[in-house]
Amino acid sequence: MPETNRRLLLASRPEGRVSLENFKVDEVEVAEPGEGEAIIKTLYLSLDPTNRVWMAGDSYLPAVKKGEVMRGMGLGQIVASRSDSYEVGDLCVGMPGWQEYANTADAATPWNVLPRGTGLPPTTMLGALGMTGMTAYWGVTDVCAVAEGETFVVDGAAGAVGSVAGQIAKARGARVVGIAGTVEKCDWLTSELGFDAAVCYRDEDFTDQLKAACPDGVDAQFENVGGEIMDAVYELLNTHGRVAVCGLIAGYNEHEIPKGPTNFGKMIFARLKVQGFLIMDYAGRAGEALGEMVPWMQEGKLKHEETLVQGEVTDVPETLNMLFEGENRGKLILEIAQPDLGVPEA
Amino acid sequence: MPETNRRLLLASRPEGRVSLENFKVDEVEVAEPGEGEAIIKTLYLSLDPTNRVWMAGDSYLPAVKKGEVMRGMGLGQIVASRSDSYEVGDLCVGMPGWQEYANTADAATPWNVLPRGTGLPPTTMLGALGMTGMTAYWGVTDVCAVAEGETFVVDGAAGAVGSVAGQIAKARGARVVGIAGTVEKCDWLTSELGFDAAVCYRDEDFTDQLKAACPDGVDAQFENVGGEIMDAVYELLNTHGRVAVCGLIAGYNEHEIPKGPTNFGKMIFARLKVQGFLIMDYAGRAGEALGEMVPWMQEGKLKHEETLVQGEVTDVPETLNMLFEGENRGKLILEIAQPDLGVPEA
Repeated sequence: MPETNRRLLLASRPEGRVSLENFKVDEVEVAEPGEGEAIIKTLYLSLDPTNRVWMAGDSYLPAVKKGEVMRGMGLGQIVASRSDSYEVGDLCVGMPGWQEYANTADAATPWNVLPRGTGLPPTTMLGALGMTGMTAYWGVTDVCAVAEGETFVVDGAAGAVGSVAGQIAKARGARVVGIAGTVEKCDWLTSELGFDAAVCYRDEDFTDQLKAACPDGVDAQFENVGGEIMDAVYELLNTHGRVAVCGLIAGYNEHEIPKGPTNFGKMIFARLKVQGFLIMDYAGRAGEALGEMVPWMQEGKLKHEETLVQGEVTDVPETLNMLFEGENRGKLILEIAQPDLGVPEA
Repeated sequence: MPETNRRLLLASRPEGRVSLENFKVDEVEVAEPGEGEAIIKTLYLSLDPTNRVWMAGDSYLPAVKKGEVMRGMGLGQIVASRSDSYEVGDLCVGMPGWQEYANTADAATPWNVLPRGTGLPPTTMLGALGMTGMTAYWGVTDVCAVAEGETFVVDGAAGAVGSVAGQIAKARGARVVGIAGTVEKCDWLTSELGFDAAVCYRDEDFTDQLKAACPDGVDAQFENVGGEIMDAVYELLNTHGRVAVCGLIAGYNEHEIPKGPTNFGKMIFARLKVQGFLIMDYAGRAGEALGEMVPWMQEGKLKHEETLVQGEVTDVPETLNMLFEGENRGKLILEIAQPDLGVPEA
C-alpha cells in the first residue's frame, strides 16, 4: 500500500488562465480500503474543457467547492481491494479527481473496469472510445443527424471531440470540413484523418477559405468553440441547417459568457435548429455508440489521437491551459504514473 | 368593372418607422381579365411583421424591389371573372399586395376561395384560422411540442400569433403565461383568453413577476419578440427546454439585427433546443391544423381577436407601425372596402 496521496483542493476560482496557485496542494495518508472498497492509483488524468467549467461556478453540475478535491476524469489501476468488483491490477476509468489515489467508495459516478487483453491502448478509453468520443458520436449522429452527401463543419477539429466528430461524420458519408488553429493541425486532419478540407482560423482570409471549402454551404455544424468562429460557420448554414452545441471553449477563460449567434434572425429565415447537448443524456446508450465505433476503429476509419504529457499531479492546472491555447492534438492526457507490469498495454 | 387601381410601389427601404413617403402612390387602369383570369377587389389587408422584413432586404423570400407593388396578404372579392375557379362575389384569401385590385394571374401564391355560409367572419381566415393562426399551431404543437402540465410562455402574447399560440397551448393542457405591453392586454389574456397568467414587460419588476408566474420554470418558449424580453424567458428555461423562434419583432425596425441569447452557454448546460420555423414549411398540412383548430373555435377554446382599422390603401404604411408600437390586440387588419351585399358575413 502507498503511504501518501497528494491532491489538489480548489482554493480560488481562476480568472483567465488556470495555475497551481488556484489550488492548495494537500498531502494525506492513504487509508486502507474498508469492506467492499478498493483503492485506485491514478495513472492518466483526462484534461477536458469541462474541468474549467466545473471550477468556475454552477453549471450542469454544481461547481467544485473551495476546499474540495478538484473534479476530473481519469484512468487508474487498482492497488488494493476488499471489493468483489475490483481485482488488484484492474485498469478502471472513472472520476478520480485531481489526486494520486482515490477510494472507489468516494466516486460520484461508477468506475468501469477495462476488459484485459483487448489489444487497444488503455488511454483509448479516455479518448475516441471514452466520454469525448461518445460525445462526438451523439452530436454527429443524433443532434446534427448528418446524412450522406451533406456538408459537415466542426471547429476545434484537432481537439479530442472535434477530431472524432469529423471522422464519424465522414464514416456516415458527409463532406467534412475542419477548423483548427495551425497549418500543421489542418494538414493532419486532411492527410491522416481523412477530412475533405481543413481551414486555419488564424489566417486573415479565414472566412473566404471556409466559404471556398463549403461550396454547397453547410448543413450541419458541430460547435466546440463559439464566438467569431461559430459565427463564420453559422453564416454559411443552409436552410434547415442544424447546430450541435457541444462546447464554447472560446469563452471559458473569459469573464464574459459566450453569446449566441450574431445574426439570430437567420434562425427564422433559414429555419435553423440549434441544440445543446451533454454526454450524460446518452448515458444508457454507450453500447449503441461503441457498437458502431469499435468496428470503425478496427477498420481504420476512426483513429484515436492523443497528446500525452508526462508529469505529476501538481502539473495538472498548467497542462489544462494547453486546451485553451490550442496546444493539443486529439485527446489531452496527463500521465502521472504508468501501469504496473503484468497489465496489458498497447 | 372598376376603372382605376391605386397601388403602393416601394420607393425606398424604410429605416425605423414606415411611412407613406417610402412608397410611390401609383394609379393605373384596371384591365379586363383575360381568358382564365379574374379580378379581385381588395377588402381587408393583413398587416404582419413580415411585411417589414420583406421591405428591408432579402430574407426567406427575396426583398420587394423598388418600383414593385408592396407584397402583402389580404382578403378580397371577385368583381370580374373569366375563370372557372372564381365566381363573381367569391371571397378569397391570398396575396393581393398593397393595392385596391389584383389579377389572379399575377399571384405568386394561389388564392383560396372561402366556402360560403360557414357563419364564421371572413376575417377569421386572415387571423386565427389563417396564416398567423396556423403559424401559432405548428410552433406550439411541432416545434415546442408542448406536453400536458408543462409551462409555456409566449411573448407578443396579445398579437395575432401570440394570442392564438397561448390558446392552443392551453387547449393542449399546458400552464400558459403571456407577456404583453399593457395592463389592459394582460387582463384580456387572463380574463378572455384563459391564460393562467400574464405579465407586462413595461413594469419595472417585470423579471420578478415573470419568475413568480412560472414557479416551475419554463419548458417551452414561443418567441415573437427577441432582445431583452426573450432573454428574460430564456433565463427561466428548464433542462431540455424548447424555444420556437417565430419572430423577432424587437429588431425589425432597428438597424441592428436581433442577437441570440446572451447566456448562450446555457444551451449546453440545460440542453436547450432553439429552432426557427416558417409557416411555409407546413404548407401541405393546413388540413391537419384546421382539423383541430376549427372544433376548438366551435367549442369556444379558441377565440379570433382582431384590431380592425378602417381606411384606404394609402393608410397601410402608417397602420403597419401599430404592430411595432404595441397598438394592436390580436390580428391587425386594415379594411379598405366592405364586401358586396349578397355575400354572407358574420
